[in-house]
Amino acid sequence: MSTTRRSTADQATFQTSAPNTLLTLYRRTRQRTLSLVEPLSEEDCCVQSQLSCSPAKWHLGHTTWFFERFIAVDALGKSAYNDRFEFLFNSYYNALGDRQPRACRGLLTRPGLGEVLAYRHVVDDAVCEALEQDRLPQQALAALRLGLNHEQQHQELLLMDIKHLFSCSPLHVPYIDDEPAEEVSSASSAHWVEFAGGLTEVGAIAGDGFTFDNESPRHRVFREPFALQNRLITNGEYRAFVEDNGYERAELWLDAGWRARSQAEWRMPAYWCEVDGVLCEFTLYGTRPLRDAEPVLHLSYFEADAFARWSGARLPTEFELETAYPTSAGDDDANGRLLEAGRFHAAPAVERSDRSVMRQVRGDAWEWTSSSYGPYPGYRPPPGAVGEYNGKFMCNQYVLRGGSFATPTDHLRSTYRNFFEPGDRWQFSGLRLARSLNA
Amino acid sequence: MSTTRRSTADQATFQTSAPNTLLTLYRRTRQRTLSLVEPLSEEDCCVQSQLSCSPAKWHLGHTTWFFERFIAVDALGKSAYNDRFEFLFNSYYNALGDRQPRACRGLLTRPGLGEVLAYRHVVDDAVCEALEQDRLPQQALAALRLGLNHEQQHQELLLMDIKHLFSCSPLHVPYIDDEPAEEVSSASSAHWVEFAGGLTEVGAIAGDGFTFDNESPRHRVFREPFALQNRLITNGEYRAFVEDNGYERAELWLDAGWRARSQAEWRMPAYWCEVDGVLCEFTLYGTRPLRDAEPVLHLSYFEADAFARWSGARLPTEFELETAYPTSAGDDDANGRLLEAGRFHAAPAVERSDRSVMRQVRGDAWEWTSSSYGPYPGYRPPPGAVGEYNGKFMCNQYVLRGGSFATPTDHLRSTYRNFFEPGDRWQFSGLRLARSLNA
Amino acid sequence: MSTTRRSTADQATFQTSAPNTLLTLYRRTRQRTLSLVEPLSEEDCCVQSQLSCSPAKWHLGHTTWFFERFIAVDALGKSAYNDRFEFLFNSYYNALGDRQPRACRGLLTRPGLGEVLAYRHVVDDAVCEALEQDRLPQQALAALRLGLNHEQQHQELLLMDIKHLFSCSPLHVPYIDDEPAEEVSSASSAHWVEFAGGLTEVGAIAGDGFTFDNESPRHRVFREPFALQNRLITNGEYRAFVEDNGYERAELWLDAGWRARSQAEWRMPAYWCEVDGVLCEFTLYGTRPLRDAEPVLHLSYFEADAFARWSGARLPTEFELETAYPTSAGDDDANGRLLEAGRFHAAPAVERSDRSVMRQVRGDAWEWTSSSYGPYPGYRPPPGAVGEYNGKFMCNQYVLRGGSFATPTDHLRSTYRNFFEPGDRWQFSGLRLARSLNA
Amino acid sequence: MSTTRRSTADQATFQTSAPNTLLTLYRRTRQRTLSLVEPLSEEDCCVQSQLSCSPAKWHLGHTTWFFERFIAVDALGKSAYNDRFEFLFNSYYNALGDRQPRACRGLLTRPGLGEVLAYRHVVDDAVCEALEQDRLPQQALAALRLGLNHEQQHQELLLMDIKHLFSCSPLHVPYIDDEPAEEVSSASSAHWVEFAGGLTEVGAIAGDGFTFDNESPRHRVFREPFALQNRLITNGEYRAFVEDNGYERAELWLDAGWRARSQAEWRMPAYWCEVDGVLCEFTLYGTRPLRDAEPVLHLSYFEADAFARWSGARLPTEFELETAYPTSAGDDDANGRLLEAGRFHAAPAVERSDRSVMRQVRGDAWEWTSSSYGPYPGYRPPPGAVGEYNGKFMCNQYVLRGGSFATPTDHLRSTYRNFFEPGDRWQFSGLRLARSLNA
Repeated sequence: MSTTRRSTADQATFQTSAPNTLLTLYRRTRQRTLSLVEPLSEEDCCVQSQLSCSPAKWHLGHTTWFFERFIAVDALGKSAYNDRFEFLFNSYYNALGDRQPRACRGLLTRPGLGEVLAYRHVVDDAVCEALEQDRLPQQALAALRLGLNHEQQHQELLLMDIKHLFSCSPLHVPYIDDEPAEEVSSASSAHWVEFAGGLTEVGAIAGDGFTFDNESPRHRVFREPFALQNRLITNGEYRAFVEDNGYERAELWLDAGWRARSQAEWRMPAYWCEVDGVLCEFTLYGTRPLRDAEPVLHLSYFEADAFARWSGARLPTEFELETAYPTSAGDDDANGRLLEAGRFHAAPAVERSDRSVMRQVRGDAWEWTSSSYGPYPGYRPPPGAVGEYNGKFMCNQYVLRGGSFATPTDHLRSTYRNFFEPGDRWQFSGLRLARSLNA
Repeated sequence: MSTTRRSTADQATFQTSAPNTLLTLYRRTRQRTLSLVEPLSEEDCCVQSQLSCSPAKWHLGHTTWFFERFIAVDALGKSAYNDRFEFLFNSYYNALGDRQPRACRGLLTRPGLGEVLAYRHVVDDAVCEALEQDRLPQQALAALRLGLNHEQQHQELLLMDIKHLFSCSPLHVPYIDDEPAEEVSSASSAHWVEFAGGLTEVGAIAGDGFTFDNESPRHRVFREPFALQNRLITNGEYRAFVEDNGYERAELWLDAGWRARSQAEWRMPAYWCEVDGVLCEFTLYGTRPLRDAEPVLHLSYFEADAFARWSGARLPTEFELETAYPTSAGDDDANGRLLEAGRFHAAPAVERSDRSVMRQVRGDAWEWTSSSYGPYPGYRPPPGAVGEYNGKFMCNQYVLRGGSFATPTDHLRSTYRNFFEPGDRWQFSGLRLARSLNA
Repeated sequence: MSTTRRSTADQATFQTSAPNTLLTLYRRTRQRTLSLVEPLSEEDCCVQSQLSCSPAKWHLGHTTWFFERFIAVDALGKSAYNDRFEFLFNSYYNALGDRQPRACRGLLTRPGLGEVLAYRHVVDDAVCEALEQDRLPQQALAALRLGLNHEQQHQELLLMDIKHLFSCSPLHVPYIDDEPAEEVSSASSAHWVEFAGGLTEVGAIAGDGFTFDNESPRHRVFREPFALQNRLITNGEYRAFVEDNGYERAELWLDAGWRARSQAEWRMPAYWCEVDGVLCEFTLYGTRPLRDAEPVLHLSYFEADAFARWSGARLPTEFELETAYPTSAGDDDANGRLLEAGRFHAAPAVERSDRSVMRQVRGDAWEWTSSSYGPYPGYRPPPGAVGEYNGKFMCNQYVLRGGSFATPTDHLRSTYRNFFEPGDRWQFSGLRLARSLNA
Repeated sequence: MSTTRRSTADQATFQTSAPNTLLTLYRRTRQRTLSLVEPLSEEDCCVQSQLSCSPAKWHLGHTTWFFERFIAVDALGKSAYNDRFEFLFNSYYNALGDRQPRACRGLLTRPGLGEVLAYRHVVDDAVCEALEQDRLPQQALAALRLGLNHEQQHQELLLMDIKHLFSCSPLHVPYIDDEPAEEVSSASSAHWVEFAGGLTEVGAIAGDGFTFDNESPRHRVFREPFALQNRLITNGEYRAFVEDNGYERAELWLDAGWRARSQAEWRMPAYWCEVDGVLCEFTLYGTRPLRDAEPVLHLSYFEADAFARWSGARLPTEFELETAYPTSAGDDDANGRLLEAGRFHAAPAVERSDRSVMRQVRGDAWEWTSSSYGPYPGYRPPPGAVGEYNGKFMCNQYVLRGGSFATPTDHLRSTYRNFFEPGDRWQFSGLRLARSLNA
């Protein structure tokens, strides 16, 4: 998918979009969330399996609350569906008052799934009616677009959280059945693609479709010449690191990483396990033998960094990745839109003749970068409660670029900044190697 | 309910019971557990609200597994309903292998409630068929009786755990509606009843109905002369302790109690709260104003002990209570069987003319004793896995006697030993004052 | 040392003691504490190696503060040496106000050791002068006797704490040099000594020398017939338990014990370690090969209990030990007064012809009992701050009887109750086996 | 001190330095460490007051071990003074084997201070002899220079750690007496100094005196136009933030900062306290009233960031500070070399007529920057154990620039990168405000 075509598409759907187009988008987005919880029971939707995860039901309620609060209540003057729901479904907006502690989202057996779905219905009716009647002012439309992108982020979070929950079950239940057969059993070869350095612009171009505040302002950065591998690191390559005792060699690790590894007793990526002597992986399709050609997933920053050091390379910076992607114009890598295509796992890079094409730049695995997540020069959070959306998390997290198989397609843009703490590994995160050319 | 009549009843149901009487009892007991979960949704049944609580679904599965394992599999040679269920539903029997960690019982969204109920059905069919055909050997019949008493214990645990879960909800949802109106608003007066000391026998009389191993062997103990109050401490009395800064005066507390209170920031009993300036209590009927005449509930050992010290009295020993109860023969205190009568909370002691009658000795609130839970002289746990039922917990716990509104009626016997850690307070625990007569 | 002679001696020193005898005792006791810190540097005296240990300097200050507070200030009207010292050296007396948190006693680099010794000197001068001039009223004399016994308890604590501190050093520094050579390499044989049951009196006889409040009131208890082994369990016997995988077999352990063992990864008693393939023990003489004939030391209650179960026996109750000791009249076991004799470790029981004599009943290792530490019937703590001395700790601790090589001789009495939490093992604690005769 | 003169001086002392000059420097540096511990007792030198602090004795031993290991052993072939000392005094070099856990450095009562000083003496003799005889090869000379800079870093750490230890004492003991009287009671006025943006070079210039590896390679960065305040934030300004409820307003804080503040219950900077209603500060001179004109010290990154947000400004980046400093050429701010001048606390900025001069750029308080501590483009840690010096800590820490009153003078260079975790606040850290000019 070319950047050019994407931003054209964006303009169609977001920017110059007539309300009715927004209506279609709203319905499609809301429906897609529902389709993701379809394989789940009420119990699956209720439980919180670790502090950083939320129950699926909470995701359903929280995304709905976002529209209720910022559209139905603030813009349309409706009263709240239930006075207590703001307490239950506010995630982290201090400006909007007290709320259910994050660690206790799994205690909310009430309201039940049925009532949360009814709540969705009521809010959707109000929003859709307003869109049909073209009654939303510009500011509300902006909030609506933010809400849709917000809901899309939660779609990926929901899959991450469900995968974690299901991984805790000794029954090894799959989220979904019928995984496609292995496409290729050996990885395509890896090549280095070189990039000139220099001063360049990064960040979102104002007016060019929806972007989050953390992608702005557009600004200049200077990069030294560098090279990137043309594809992601595979399970097979990472397995070699494991077998070379990568998890036992302190010299390969950051100090904080070594401590994390020691405390949590990491010996392989999350969800890898040995079953009857065979190295396996728990996926959304259940537990099955590890496929060497697929991109490695569920690495922490520390593991990605240690692997890169072991490889004699390093992690890329976020701007190396951002500026490398547009140069790969013309690459319509099929791996984007995996989830839309009904595929719930990362796919291997297929062998191609053109070695200089950057592969898997979107839609397989998030790529850890060495960039600490911080504000761009001149960044200011927007006024009001939504100012808490991104800015206050800009500390001790690292940026991931690209996107995973579970990332909604229109989030697959080169300026998109995902971020996690360096010890997190329940997200769909892998890596691509980088190296400096002049060093 | 007189002791005499109870043990007659016991003999009818347990001891000389023909298998068909056991069949009736089995069906009734199993059915009663189901009736307790009737007000609950699938989500309510799945969540674990604290480490010491278990999800209702787990209680349903665990009690079923007990019968499956010790009757269907061990005695009838059936194969297991599901090979993994022993892993999921074994509570703490090391002799039976690895199991789901206690802290993770709430992660079991699968099997769903429906499947656990189906599992109950299959096991019940097997057990009932065997009982109908009189095919169970003596040893299996003993295990069956243990299983029934075990399930009854879990019925009370289930209510404790559900109460805790519901108390965590900001929605203040009741477990059950329509609480009976307040009976009396002021407590009956309290009197001291005196008891001679001396050497006496305590513990279960062999052959006199079902008892747990921890109630045996019967043995002799020497007691100094003592007095007990004729009824339990009320909410009103305990409120006076709170208002007298009882929670702020270190001299009233055990050292470990003071530390527990400080760390957990206890300022009143569990489930007490202030709502709009009114002192309220969360009950199985929801949150409503505290009723002064009712027995205080949800005290830790430390709070009960501090209250007793503040009162210039002390907690009774377990043998003071045990030997005091039979002397109150003829007292048919109506409070026993509260739950069977459809009442889900402790009831006040009604005023009576006979001051020497011990009141509320069964069926309102468990009474903390100063007795550390230990083995009786000559105690030996039974052989096999059931040997882990009681013995291994005989350390750092304190005995409670009597019974609560949620205790099944045939557990309301004077030799019954309940036990909890001194900091626990989610059980239905109150206290009765004691004092030494010669000291 | 016979009981008779001891209590005669006690009467001489404590009861009918003229002030000048008390003076001698005061000087001797205070001097002995100083002699214990003689091998220590200022740094050794300052550091706190775990929460339950105190620095030697703090012991020096705290014991001095006890005399300053209850004699010099309260009885003699002196002003405090330093206003802040009560804050620093009050251990746990809530009645006397705020104090240095226990966990932070090791942060007190000031006052330095020199100043604390000067403080001792000033207080000693005041007390001795008052004793010489016979100016202390009865109540102050009682406080003085309590203070001396208090200081003696701290002498043993000081050795426990120093041993723990030194055990933390990778340098394996001995507290003292020149350990006596091994006396015997194989243990004397063990025999069972039988005791009739029945009703009997236990607890301190009023007027019979100094005792702590927790030894009173004297009262009656009923014991079933029982037997005790005539000597303590040896290292060799305990080593057999270790080699029989005693630490890997859950069925031998209390549930709380199994959790403690798992969390702390216990695989042998505290201070045992393997050096170059040889099983060794860290002692106050440094690290040296384990001596099989010596009593095992540094067991937690849980380990002692598991060992007893593995042996097919059990731990004794505190009253079984208390009532068994007087029957061994005539035994002048040489092991008492080990420390006074300059020996800093427990000694083996030497073979004797008379099998029925109870050996090592005092002065080698504290003996864990199955008795939870609680108040005797009619017990009341004394009024005032000293009421916090014992009573408030009567919860979740277990009684140890007998005494260790480090216990001052006049604490070696049959009614003495030592107590520790069941997971503690830095004290000099071993065990003696018991069994029930009629069970 | 002008940059020009400093680097000339550096060249004199480091670069072209003849060994005998190095000898002088070695002796002076080693002597200065000794002078810092002069006010301390043996006990003060032994205790570790929190995990991130080390005992002064450990600093003495560790800095000595650095020279022993890399000069005396590796370069001169000497044998170790004591085989166990590498275990004791290795800080974090995995390549050099196991070591005393950081959390347990305070347990090392042995070797005593005297022996550690003797150890210093022996190592110093060996190093000085080699320097006198000009026997050290180039690589060893580089290690020696690193060791001297390393020791200088530990000089500041030692003061930080001692201040923390002394702050824990209820006695409020000063490290040093006779603080100079307050110079000015009101702060000089603050002005904004503007800087043009553009592409510029940052990082150490190779060959220009000693620098740490983390200051290299020199490379280009692009900065937008910005402004900095000409002096540090004062206590008085920070006090206004506190009084404006800055610690109670979540909207001013990073999310991680709000959590840190809530968990640790921060209500003011470290070492501020209220004494009898007067806001005071614990300093190396003891506790005394807060001086409004002095720079605020002991802020965490989170507090500095919240203060900046409250001020409508932001923290500078590390490169804004680095490139702003040389422009202030000609400023001979007297505050540098405070410690050398015998002053143990930060000093106020005195009023000056030239508003555009950057004040307090060195030598009062470290300045938090918004820059996450990471490697410069092309950075590679040096080979061998010293490769662990800096690189492995480049994660989740933030850069501080400038220097404090306790920073050795020749560390006061514009490329120097100090770094701490964002929650740390026992270092001498304050802030200077920045803002973007075009935003």
